[in-house]
Amino acid sequence: MKAGIIALLTDFGTRDAYAGIMKGVLLSLNPSLKLIDLSHDIDCHNILSASYVLHTAWDYFPNGTVFCVVVDPGVGSGRSILIGGAGGKILIAPDNGIASLPVRMHRELKFYTLKTEYLESKAKNRLSSTFHGRDIFAPAAALAAGGKLVKLKGAEIKPMLLKEAFTRIDKDRSSINGSILHIDRFGNCITSVHRQDLNLFHRPDGVEIYLGSAAASASHKQEKRLPDLKKHYSEVGLGKPLTLIGSAGFLEIAVREGSAAVQLGINVKDEVHLHFIERKRTS
Amino acid sequence: MKAGIIALLTDFGTRDAYAGIMKGVLLSLNPSLKLIDLSHDIDCHNILSASYVLHTAWDYFPNGTVFCVVVDPGVGSGRSILIGGAGGKILIAPDNGIASLPVRMHRELKFYTLKTEYLESKAKNRLSSTFHGRDIFAPAAALAAGGKLVKLKGAEIKPMLLKEAFTRIDKDRSSINGSILHIDRFGNCITSVHRQDLNLFHRPDGVEIYLGSAAASASHKQEKRLPDLKKHYSEVGLGKPLTLIGSAGFLEIAVREGSAAVQLGINVKDEVHLHFIERKRTS
Amino acid sequence: MKAGIIALLTDFGTRDAYAGIMKGVLLSLNPSLKLIDLSHDIDCHNILSASYVLHTAWDYFPNGTVFCVVVDPGVGSGRSILIGGAGGKILIAPDNGIASLPVRMHRELKFYTLKTEYLESKAKNRLSSTFHGRDIFAPAAALAAGGKLVKLKGAEIKPMLLKEAFTRIDKDRSSINGSILHIDRFGNCITSVHRQDLNLFHRPDGVEIYLGSAAASASHKQEKRLPDLKKHYSEVGLGKPLTLIGSAGFLEIAVREGSAAVQLGINVKDEVHLHFIERKRTS
Repeated sequence: MKAGIIALLTDFGTRDAYAGIMKGVLLSLNPSLKLIDLSHDIDCHNILSASYVLHTAWDYFPNGTVFCVVVDPGVGSGRSILIGGAGGKILIAPDNGIASLPVRMHRELKFYTLKTEYLESKAKNRLSSTFHGRDIFAPAAALAAGGKLVKLKGAEIKPMLLKEAFTRIDKDRSSINGSILHIDRFGNCITSVHRQDLNLFHRPDGVEIYLGSAAASASHKQEKRLPDLKKHYSEVGLGKPLTLIGSAGFLEIAVREGSAAVQLGINVKDEVHLHFIERKRTS
Repeated sequence: MKAGIIALLTDFGTRDAYAGIMKGVLLSLNPSLKLIDLSHDIDCHNILSASYVLHTAWDYFPNGTVFCVVVDPGVGSGRSILIGGAGGKILIAPDNGIASLPVRMHRELKFYTLKTEYLESKAKNRLSSTFHGRDIFAPAAALAAGGKLVKLKGAEIKPMLLKEAFTRIDKDRSSINGSILHIDRFGNCITSVHRQDLNLFHRPDGVEIYLGSAAASASHKQEKRLPDLKKHYSEVGLGKPLTLIGSAGFLEIAVREGSAAVQLGINVKDEVHLHFIERKRTS
Repeated sequence: MKAGIIALLTDFGTRDAYAGIMKGVLLSLNPSLKLIDLSHDIDCHNILSASYVLHTAWDYFPNGTVFCVVVDPGVGSGRSILIGGAGGKILIAPDNGIASLPVRMHRELKFYTLKTEYLESKAKNRLSSTFHGRDIFAPAAALAAGGKLVKLKGAEIKPMLLKEAFTRIDKDRSSINGSILHIDRFGNCITSVHRQDLNLFHRPDGVEIYLGSAAASASHKQEKRLPDLKKHYSEVGLGKPLTLIGSAGFLEIAVREGSAAVQLGINVKDEVHLHFIERKRTS
């Protein structure tokens, strides 16, 4: 059953009417659509952040939802646009890495190139080289919400993936290497290390968490030890740092009622290392 | 008659999809809901500001509206959640002081603890310790909008109130003591002194308004005299300060086409004192 | 056919519930309205920017849309409110220059003074001198969306126009003089020079573009030559400046994946000059 929901995610900000104009186009094509803003304040051109934010919303929208994502530094160049999905949910986004986290967490997702000829011919001489959100993505989302997928789907393709969206687990299963995906409004720093990564190890309680910089962090000596995993903010005092599994299932570095990003000087793409300690059994 | 409106007020910001995810949950449970954003840009964890902003909207929404407020620094700790209301309007919020201004202005409001067991069992292993907006508040709001209050209402309780949300009037009725509740986008500084406070005095025209700091302001000498009450911004020149009764009925310190907060160095919780001057009658 | 869409454009920001309260008023009067945010983050009192942003959205909303614009530094003074429109679209805005770009691009627009007596009598003692968005504009927009224009339309008037919203073309057609209308989220600087201005000249390829400051730029020597017109961002390297016709048809100064405003030090109202070079034909 189609819910007729379009969930919009862009880096268009809110100083301009860019997102509002997409809504005007959508309602012009189908006045009964429900239009929901995920965010328009993704840092300009930050594809990794957009990929994470998209993932956090994916499971919480009803079947039939069309996720329309426009974080698109390559607009007007030759980049492809993706249309894909699974389980009745549809994603339309530039093929620039935005699909990374949805692909990582939902292996069943399939993607196709979006056929844009029909949409371009509709836009005619109004087609802009800088605002495909208005001229391509919004009309495509309206068609997709109306079930007109045949008009839109080209050849099946493998979407571009960003390596920072994944973790690297050592062969001897002694460590996980990841990076900072996203810094949220509260200054919480979300890493690419998922609860499922931790579950691969037998002793998640025996883990030491280190923060490296994106620059150079080969030796342990340059790393900063982070606090051990907690379940609740309230397990530490006000202003104290902690690590916990955040609401989207990823390891998060936080400060209770404070900003971990500011207090610990963390940036997107900084490295995170988890080391599992072999403890001698005393039994 | 139920309007099926959910009015959302949070400090989730717009960099993330937190507010959008709540909407996904709400529409999953009831696709016909109307979802309105009051604000998601309340300063992080600023309960006093959230309480004021909630009050400004309360009277202007139709009966049946559910106000769902998530400014919740105590998330995951033992804090209770409130469900309450009056006149067909419902409020769901953490019991941390957010109810203060609605309670002050609407004495008929009644509150109950929100029963969360049913909601927690629905969320199952997805229940997060950090995002009750998604897992508890949004589902509760959907149930409340659908009239399922019996499932949600626990024991009646008195909500936590913040003293800064109220005024203290001297016994001899010579002065009112209040504080800064909120600074709005324009830099207007809204105080806790309401038109109704002023109406208790016989000569509201004979009032002197002083600004103290939240720190120490025992003697009048440390206070700063503010301009007398005006009716319109246009009664003073561009860039000049004034005081007036703002659109929500509270005394406001403003600068015409400027920021009173910046120009006068005012912060939330700074003190405000009104002194009523006994003038000799000449009749 | 009426779409029942209200498109809202204000400088109310998102720290407060001002925009949300307008929506509460609108839904109280007509629960079936569709409410779309164009922007609430217009720089405080920046009428020129609001006029431009309004124009960018105008053509992309369906007939029947009511554009309700509240960027209103003169609220509470004697300024008039406009109601006008064309082609089934309606604009309600203060008569302070906001209509400039719609009027420039759509000569068929007609405007009337908004009759506020009925709305003021409805608001009664709740009528605020500082929040006409809630007490006048929102109720007027609900009436307009419901087709009750007779109640609202006063005498026909010519709206106030801002000279910066227009261009001045030299008599000998050797140059166009314009200014910066708006700086968008990405730092793109949109000028008042429209594609239609360029089309008046025979050789749009032979144009040199100069940036002057709003202060003093009488002689060419004080001006800064800008790069020649391109079609796509991707025609220049990352971090390099370019000029192009933006998505709303206006000449735009941009930096690929960067901020032209920051990199080139451009402000709203800075001057832009285009000089057309007479090149000798070699045929």
